[in-house]
Amino acid sequence: MLPKVLVINGPNLNLLGKREPDIYGPQTLDDINSKLAVLAKELGLDLEFFQSNHEGEIVDRIHRCVSGINGILINPGAFTHYSYAIRDAVAAVGVPCVEVHLSNIHAREEFRSKSVIAAVCLGQVSGFGAISYLLGLRALAEEVI
Amino acid sequence: MLPKVLVINGPNLNLLGKREPDIYGPQTLDDINSKLAVLAKELGLDLEFFQSNHEGEIVDRIHRCVSGINGILINPGAFTHYSYAIRDAVAAVGVPCVEVHLSNIHAREEFRSKSVIAAVCLGQVSGFGAISYLLGLRALAEEVI
Amino acid sequence: MLPKVLVINGPNLNLLGKREPDIYGPQTLDDINSKLAVLAKELGLDLEFFQSNHEGEIVDRIHRCVSGINGILINPGAFTHYSYAIRDAVAAVGVPCVEVHLSNIHAREEFRSKSVIAAVCLGQVSGFGAISYLLGLRALAEEVI
Amino acid sequence: MLPKVLVINGPNLNLLGKREPDIYGPQTLDDINSKLAVLAKELGLDLEFFQSNHEGEIVDRIHRCVSGINGILINPGAFTHYSYAIRDAVAAVGVPCVEVHLSNIHAREEFRSKSVIAAVCLGQVSGFGAISYLLGLRALAEEVI
Amino acid sequence: MLPKVLVINGPNLNLLGKREPDIYGPQTLDDINSKLAVLAKELGLDLEFFQSNHEGEIVDRIHRCVSGINGILINPGAFTHYSYAIRDAVAAVGVPCVEVHLSNIHAREEFRSKSVIAAVCLGQVSGFGAISYLLGLRALAEEVI
Amino acid sequence: MLPKVLVINGPNLNLLGKREPDIYGPQTLDDINSKLAVLAKELGLDLEFFQSNHEGEIVDRIHRCVSGINGILINPGAFTHYSYAIRDAVAAVGVPCVEVHLSNIHAREEFRSKSVIAAVCLGQVSGFGAISYLLGLRALAEEVI
Amino acid sequence: MLPKVLVINGPNLNLLGKREPDIYGPQTLDDINSKLAVLAKELGLDLEFFQSNHEGEIVDRIHRCVSGINGILINPGAFTHYSYAIRDAVAAVGVPCVEVHLSNIHAREEFRSKSVIAAVCLGQVSGFGAISYLLGLRALAEEVI
Amino acid sequence: MLPKVLVINGPNLNLLGKREPDIYGPQTLDDINSKLAVLAKELGLDLEFFQSNHEGEIVDRIHRCVSGINGILINPGAFTHYSYAIRDAVAAVGVPCVEVHLSNIHAREEFRSKSVIAAVCLGQVSGFGAISYLLGLRALAEEVI
Amino acid sequence: MLPKVLVINGPNLNLLGKREPDIYGPQTLDDINSKLAVLAKELGLDLEFFQSNHEGEIVDRIHRCVSGINGILINPGAFTHYSYAIRDAVAAVGVPCVEVHLSNIHAREEFRSKSVIAAVCLGQVSGFGAISYLLGLRALAEEVI
Amino acid sequence: MLPKVLVINGPNLNLLGKREPDIYGPQTLDDINSKLAVLAKELGLDLEFFQSNHEGEIVDRIHRCVSGINGILINPGAFTHYSYAIRDAVAAVGVPCVEVHLSNIHAREEFRSKSVIAAVCLGQVSGFGAISYLLGLRALAEEVI
Amino acid sequence: MLPKVLVINGPNLNLLGKREPDIYGPQTLDDINSKLAVLAKELGLDLEFFQSNHEGEIVDRIHRCVSGINGILINPGAFTHYSYAIRDAVAAVGVPCVEVHLSNIHAREEFRSKSVIAAVCLGQVSGFGAISYLLGLRALAEEVI
Amino acid sequence: MLPKVLVINGPNLNLLGKREPDIYGPQTLDDINSKLAVLAKELGLDLEFFQSNHEGEIVDRIHRCVSGINGILINPGAFTHYSYAIRDAVAAVGVPCVEVHLSNIHAREEFRSKSVIAAVCLGQVSGFGAISYLLGLRALAEEVI
Repeated sequence: MLPKVLVINGPNLNLLGKREPDIYGPQTLDDINSKLAVLAKELGLDLEFFQSNHEGEIVDRIHRCVSGINGILINPGAFTHYSYAIRDAVAAVGVPCVEVHLSNIHAREEFRSKSVIAAVCLGQVSGFGAISYLLGLRALAEEVI
Repeated sequence: MLPKVLVINGPNLNLLGKREPDIYGPQTLDDINSKLAVLAKELGLDLEFFQSNHEGEIVDRIHRCVSGINGILINPGAFTHYSYAIRDAVAAVGVPCVEVHLSNIHAREEFRSKSVIAAVCLGQVSGFGAISYLLGLRALAEEVI
Repeated sequence: MLPKVLVINGPNLNLLGKREPDIYGPQTLDDINSKLAVLAKELGLDLEFFQSNHEGEIVDRIHRCVSGINGILINPGAFTHYSYAIRDAVAAVGVPCVEVHLSNIHAREEFRSKSVIAAVCLGQVSGFGAISYLLGLRALAEEVI
Repeated sequence: MLPKVLVINGPNLNLLGKREPDIYGPQTLDDINSKLAVLAKELGLDLEFFQSNHEGEIVDRIHRCVSGINGILINPGAFTHYSYAIRDAVAAVGVPCVEVHLSNIHAREEFRSKSVIAAVCLGQVSGFGAISYLLGLRALAEEVI
Repeated sequence: MLPKVLVINGPNLNLLGKREPDIYGPQTLDDINSKLAVLAKELGLDLEFFQSNHEGEIVDRIHRCVSGINGILINPGAFTHYSYAIRDAVAAVGVPCVEVHLSNIHAREEFRSKSVIAAVCLGQVSGFGAISYLLGLRALAEEVI
Repeated sequence: MLPKVLVINGPNLNLLGKREPDIYGPQTLDDINSKLAVLAKELGLDLEFFQSNHEGEIVDRIHRCVSGINGILINPGAFTHYSYAIRDAVAAVGVPCVEVHLSNIHAREEFRSKSVIAAVCLGQVSGFGAISYLLGLRALAEEVI
Repeated sequence: MLPKVLVINGPNLNLLGKREPDIYGPQTLDDINSKLAVLAKELGLDLEFFQSNHEGEIVDRIHRCVSGINGILINPGAFTHYSYAIRDAVAAVGVPCVEVHLSNIHAREEFRSKSVIAAVCLGQVSGFGAISYLLGLRALAEEVI
Repeated sequence: MLPKVLVINGPNLNLLGKREPDIYGPQTLDDINSKLAVLAKELGLDLEFFQSNHEGEIVDRIHRCVSGINGILINPGAFTHYSYAIRDAVAAVGVPCVEVHLSNIHAREEFRSKSVIAAVCLGQVSGFGAISYLLGLRALAEEVI
Repeated sequence: MLPKVLVINGPNLNLLGKREPDIYGPQTLDDINSKLAVLAKELGLDLEFFQSNHEGEIVDRIHRCVSGINGILINPGAFTHYSYAIRDAVAAVGVPCVEVHLSNIHAREEFRSKSVIAAVCLGQVSGFGAISYLLGLRALAEEVI
Repeated sequence: MLPKVLVINGPNLNLLGKREPDIYGPQTLDDINSKLAVLAKELGLDLEFFQSNHEGEIVDRIHRCVSGINGILINPGAFTHYSYAIRDAVAAVGVPCVEVHLSNIHAREEFRSKSVIAAVCLGQVSGFGAISYLLGLRALAEEVI
Repeated sequence: MLPKVLVINGPNLNLLGKREPDIYGPQTLDDINSKLAVLAKELGLDLEFFQSNHEGEIVDRIHRCVSGINGILINPGAFTHYSYAIRDAVAAVGVPCVEVHLSNIHAREEFRSKSVIAAVCLGQVSGFGAISYLLGLRALAEEVI
Repeated sequence: MLPKVLVINGPNLNLLGKREPDIYGPQTLDDINSKLAVLAKELGLDLEFFQSNHEGEIVDRIHRCVSGINGILINPGAFTHYSYAIRDAVAAVGVPCVEVHLSNIHAREEFRSKSVIAAVCLGQVSGFGAISYLLGLRALAEEVI
């Protein structure tokens, strides 16, 4: 059985491609997921996709990773900046996690440069649009395979 | 067909009239909605009401505004002070939005004077009790009619 | 006799319409005052207009409100951010006061988001151009009629 | 009929016993609830248990306390540090509330030492593992019996 | 000829006795000035009184102290907290100056505890109502006689 | 021989019952000590009481705990906010310590919410009046018996 | 019997006259006390003098004011900037208190401009050398006679 | 007709030469103006001089620059550090403006190093005494000729 | 001709493999470079390697990128946190740049979480050891091929 | 022999004219130096030019000013904001120094408005492009001739 | 007669050797004093030892240094971080003073890196265990012999 | 073979004796080195001297300590306050290091009291002029012999 990675997208990322394309680019979340699927196959990984605008649902989903999930790829969206609940969930389940961002969070509003979640992840990739996800998946693959 | 405005009330506002009347006044949310309905008729607007104590549901509801909603009147309640998720949702859908507050947020605890959402709204009305909503609706009317 | 509202405009607002129209819009202060006059008539209020670039004159004018003025509608302009003298004047005379701003002060330079005067007003309306004044007048009308 | 206390546990506390045992100890939430039940009997209190990783559900549950609940014992978990919505809910319902923490929040990361909820509670107990809950229940008993 | 002291009162102090008597007491500025006059006689000082709500007029008046004024007793009112112009004026003329406050500025809003003027005065007296002025005059008398 | 707990009360707590009863309640320190004695008996603990307004005496007393004292129950009073000396003493002797407060330190002046001592204690109980001591003793009992 | 005022001098003030005369002037504490005695006689007050370099002794002495002392004149010296214990003692005994300083605390190192005690005093006098004490005594006389 | 530059001097600068010569040098404002006049002639500029200690008068004067003034040379004095009104006036009229200071504002009290006006000027010259004005005029000449 | 990427390593990275292996891992810089070379070949890129402990040499090398270099992969080491000179160099040459870090800079000392350079890069990859470089190169490849 | 001025340009200024012309203008450093040479001749000064991207080389060059250099004109570039080494070098050699900037450092990113070097210079000129240098040289000429 | 140095140890230092040996090392205060005595003999100094956990006693002891003591070697322990009283005492007596610390105060909790006393000492030695005292004594010897 | 200590002096220290003698004293670096050499002989240490104004050269030199150097004595000069590169170099090579300063860095400008390097050294000696070096060498000797 292949190692399995859960791809979590936080609030508003379901709007990708429709939303502020000058900041986030023209691709939809499905476009990104398709690319991830291709890469996963190449890397020998199974993927599962999850998107929610509800912090609680993301926490619940992370909890269920205890069984059957070997790695988490997460773009916490706006939750990046205040969800200590997600931070604690990631720390609690002990599944390797990588944080990704479409835009360069260091080149926007001051509040976006601070992640309360990154400290409990393996690392962070930010600024490369959909490519951020692909790179994050590769980083995870190194850890979970 | 009349332009349609979605009236969003955030956490704890369902308790209005029962809750700390010295701060928020004696009116219930239904009282306010009734007044809004009267004014909407006068202004030639259709209204839809939405209240939730769940940040995620508010984000979801804002997303659905993409079709059929011409303006948003929002009292984010306590989410005013930390919900970057709602901020991003408002910015993403591109529907004109007005933020209202019952109490004067500049005359209470320090943390209440800061809104993380106001920057992506047309403007903000605070301090006039139920009247804040009526004024906010008028401001929206100017924009969406 | 009708209740009387004093409309105070602070520094640089006499330049309205000539000044940075991308921020403040194309209307002159006279345009706004005319609209206010129409609305005041409708609401059953008497208006008096006062503009000054001098903090001291504004304080003096507020003092004279003790007799004959039932409400104050004020756009303190740049004084919003540092004139504790105007704040104290408003608090001292005990006449209901509403603070208005043309632009959305929460969407500009950091220093503009802080008002030292709002805490002693009934409330604040910001971001709707000339409409901010009209809404502020309506808010006052509820209080003084 | 016995006075009734609602025991609320916030995000990630359902993982207790599985999660970072060096910080939170080896007991599960059920273990703690069993101990609480024994003590409640002794103190002449009825208990009801509620756990959620969703801020909105916690707010909803607090609202329902208006009828039938005489006291709230809450471990807000990570919500301690940012949920002004829960703070407002507690203040709104006017039911006596005690905040408890398993770990000593003053001996961990800086952000954990600040509670935005404690100010509207009777008091706070932190640092004694499961015992924190038992002590909190005793404090409530003094208030509600 | 007797040494001469200029008594300067800043913005809103002309309202004394009418204004927030719970904070500033029931006396008018004339009452205070009368008491000062009695004490000045006793101390062998000549007094001159000046009140203005205009920062610029206060600066002008301080400048004119260069000739004929031996000491300044000033209650800068709200200017205490931001008028670097008055600070520079006091420093420039080199006339001994004492700052007084009716209320205890350390027991009110945070912003009132900071004086930008005190550093260039001989000292500061605050919290004793009209008595603050009398004490300030005595302090000046020690310096100028 | 029973395990022995030293109860330390810091500055001004000798005035309890006479001092600001709206904040600290009507009970005297003797009243609290009597209640503690009853509970200690029930828990199988020996108690010793110590009160001082002198930081140095408290440090000295903590040092003597090295022999014969199994736990410390401390209300550091105002020393809570600045006595690093007491903090270091508690850390040095290695005797389990619980910090208690009569009032809810999170609901008063800002400076009271910060304890420099709590980080080296087992935990902290605040806000329940005399009950805080009883709860603190129970917490200690779990540790030292 | 005359009303009685306790004059408290904090740490290092026993060195007055020997210590940094360019900052504190050439007078000894005895010189100041003699002047205070003369003025007390004139005002119809009894004085008692107390100096200590021990925070605890000052707290103890303030406590004893409950009987027999009608007012406190205090120069807390360096304790001004951190002794919340003295602050609480003053608040607890409810005896009117005036804080005085020899030097102008607003014209020295930044840390000296902040008093943690002033907020619970009637007021503060600073900057006039020995005269500060005399003025402070006059202020107290107004309150206690 | 020659391009015209308005030279504005803010509060206390009328005292130049009499005021703290160790900081500001021995020259009077007239001395500086004479030098400016000589240089203006050389550069082919017309000058007009304006000094006021009144923020409002400076704002008024800047407004009148809309017609007939091609450049502004301003030493805002103490207004440098807080007059957002002057800042807004400069931005509003759209006339090129240069800020000058006699002393090196980066080598004095911390508060002097911050200018709230510089951001809307072409640039700033500070630290060269009267020469700062001459250099500022040269900078303006490059812009307006 | 293949697009060319310059790989820049800042101070102390020449010690990799010898230096604090628990933080930075056991690989040497040569090991990383070898891996990069393999990947570059696969991606169709030419690589050039540059390491220096001298900020000035790094700035000089970035300048020379103007001709012949299509992308920069940089681990600025400690310069990340203060070298505005490198930031300006990257911005000046206009060559796409990716910032990488071996360790997770968000999980170490506070000062390490802030990059002054990231804002002028395409994005940032941190936390994956040598893999960070490989991911960064892939991100660049997307941009420069 | 003519007095000699050393013109120092810091990091990235060698790229002038090629680099971000919207911020720094179209002129090269050679263009500026040529203009400076013309002005120097007119003022009766000898010039020497030095540019380096290496902080250490700039410090070394400043040291050598002890003999043969009468004044320093420096644009420290990005070093402005953090090079205490250059600050100390300027202070150490005791040669009059003027700091210049092409752009208005008060109208850009926050970090650019702070100079750690200006406090040990005669003064600062910023915002006038190449003209800043010419004005700075004139200021130096007044000092060194 | 030999010059005399007073060695002052602050709170908790009497526990040395028993207290947290991983931080402070295995030596007792007597061990350190013995080493100091040997070195003093070698340097030609007389020593006197003083340890107290009472800030007031340390202040008193410093005062008595006025006669008979030529230098002070002080480890203020936790008082380092808040005792402005000790700072003022050292400044007042004018006896050369050296501050020493066993541990490296820059490598521990943030609050330990700040000394409020060091500014009035000759200098500070920290981090070398008992050796810090010996080095501090040598530094004093250079001053007092 | 004797243990070998590298003495590193940072920027501007080559000017010692010529530079601001009121702050740094009259001795040259050679004078200090001679004294160090005498002491080294006495202690049984070999010395090597290195001074540079270039951060990169200091980093390079520290790297070469891996072989042949047993201890580092460093006065980082102005680099003390910002060179994280030197900090990382010291941490990387694992050679015991002592930081010394001529002046008392706690008694000068605020920015000088903070060392970014001290946390990775054994300890710090500051304030004793050339003696600081001698003491630092003694501290190292204890470690490396």
